[in-house]
Amino acid sequence: MSPAADGSPVVVTGGAGAIGSVLAVSLSASGHPVRLIDNLSSGRRDAVEGLIAGKRATLKVADLREAGSFETAFAGAGAAWHLAANPDIRKGTLEPNLDLEHGTIATFRFLEAARRHDVRRVFFSSSSVVYGLPTVFPTPESYGPLLPESLYAASKLASEALFSAYAHCYGLTAYLYRFANVIGPGMTHGVIYDFFEKVRQTPERLEVLGDGNQAKSYLRNEDCVAAMRFAGEHARDPVNVFNIGTTDQISAREIAEIVVRATGGTARIEYTGGTRGWVGDVPKQLLAIDKLRALGWRPPISSREAVERTVGELARARGYA
Amino acid sequence: MSPAADGSPVVVTGGAGAIGSVLAVSLSASGHPVRLIDNLSSGRRDAVEGLIAGKRATLKVADLREAGSFETAFAGAGAAWHLAANPDIRKGTLEPNLDLEHGTIATFRFLEAARRHDVRRVFFSSSSVVYGLPTVFPTPESYGPLLPESLYAASKLASEALFSAYAHCYGLTAYLYRFANVIGPGMTHGVIYDFFEKVRQTPERLEVLGDGNQAKSYLRNEDCVAAMRFAGEHARDPVNVFNIGTTDQISAREIAEIVVRATGGTARIEYTGGTRGWVGDVPKQLLAIDKLRALGWRPPISSREAVERTVGELARARGYA
Repeated sequence: MSPAADGSPVVVTGGAGAIGSVLAVSLSASGHPVRLIDNLSSGRRDAVEGLIAGKRATLKVADLREAGSFETAFAGAGAAWHLAANPDIRKGTLEPNLDLEHGTIATFRFLEAARRHDVRRVFFSSSSVVYGLPTVFPTPESYGPLLPESLYAASKLASEALFSAYAHCYGLTAYLYRFANVIGPGMTHGVIYDFFEKVRQTPERLEVLGDGNQAKSYLRNEDCVAAMRFAGEHARDPVNVFNIGTTDQISAREIAEIVVRATGGTARIEYTGGTRGWVGDVPKQLLAIDKLRALGWRPPISSREAVERTVGELARARGYA
Repeated sequence: MSPAADGSPVVVTGGAGAIGSVLAVSLSASGHPVRLIDNLSSGRRDAVEGLIAGKRATLKVADLREAGSFETAFAGAGAAWHLAANPDIRKGTLEPNLDLEHGTIATFRFLEAARRHDVRRVFFSSSSVVYGLPTVFPTPESYGPLLPESLYAASKLASEALFSAYAHCYGLTAYLYRFANVIGPGMTHGVIYDFFEKVRQTPERLEVLGDGNQAKSYLRNEDCVAAMRFAGEHARDPVNVFNIGTTDQISAREIAEIVVRATGGTARIEYTGGTRGWVGDVPKQLLAIDKLRALGWRPPISSREAVERTVGELARARGYA
């Protein structure tokens, strides 16, 4: 019996977020009652209102730092996905306790809930930022040493470590997914969102942090969710680590140009200079996805296509097109 | 000016412990006033009483989870060493919050204190357990993926990640030392200590967990301290990761035989069977120390010599010889 088709309830933290809400729809379509947990700090209730109205999902508004506020959602669940986190890397540098509390400690509470309620399959949205500033591109899952550049990255690595320990000590099966930049509807942070905000505020210019040569790969929400579920169905180690990304990169300069075209073409692009956009930024990112490809998954579109699609959606939503 | 000889005060957490107290003596001998912080849960005041009586060290008995209880020790310090941790890996599996609180959260409080008081050089006693069950021996610092087998190991990796992030975000220089098994006077845990306890309780038999073929490398307290200080004086990256160990291994079976001989030779060795001694154990450990050797450091004795010396000390202390 496929674990995706057994109809057991599934917990999703960060379930009202940009990725969590897409995952919820996907799990629901496979017949799982979905139990969403979200503090609605960046997630939006309307992203999952359809599922809730259709009695296919419940939403518990709760703070993951407080076990008592959400643990009952784990009772009888067959799997649990931990996507909740502070989404703003730069904010974590200004408030050093943010990623410790909403990252590492929240992950611990999540895993304790899974252990106490005997939820055996646990999934985690990690990030390519665990690689720090890698010297190997594309970067494989076996890359080391892992020297995070931000407190956000540190909390992702700390959370991975907790998932691994729980799997080995308490017999859980863990899936750790290291994402490239994930973009799409519902996002509240990141370069594309930031560029749109800047153009809205000052239509005549678009300031790009750094020299614009920062290059990363980008993946759509729905493709990220499909890859996670695919790996969950095809990998069976106690701890399964997968990079999830595309095989190409796109630069901040190119993204700025796409955003300017989509917003009327009037903004002049200016660069603040320097190879890094901001403290904690990872200016170059390209993940080796051979491990996921070997299982049979392929990214359906390129980074450029993902960016163009997302920029097009945002431009329409904001009345530019 | 060598950072070891500038005479500035140095903070040592876990400063009354088996490694911390040896480090304190070493730092004091180099002219540093030493500020020890310890909760005395496994550290012993008498290990540092001589330094304190000679006004060369102060001891603050404090809980690292409470920043207010110890932060003043960082004022004006030139460097800070974070050695405090729960020393009992198995206990951490029974009490899952133990390593989170006394490992990861304590490390965060330590780093916050360093950041607030502008202590620019920070040192951390990590462990070979961050490698999980490696497939490469000897295991280099670049090994990955890092999949910890215990909550203790997870907290070591989480703490490394925090040190790395603090170094990059706030301009600290961090030294992360991944230890082989460190043994010597003052130790309160580990295989040699356990074997002596068992022989004391039942002199006719010595039960060895596992099949006895678990093989690891061992290093003396004083050699570990010398290696840490050597690397601190010779490496200058923002984040410096070093394995610290010897180049040979010794098996649990051989250690049992050495302990039995030293305790009168009457105990019959019995094995519980299985390749692993206990949940979370790493049965095979051998670290590549090429990086440290390239700087000029050599382990002065082998693992076997370290074990024999330590067993001899314990046997004399317990009246066997």
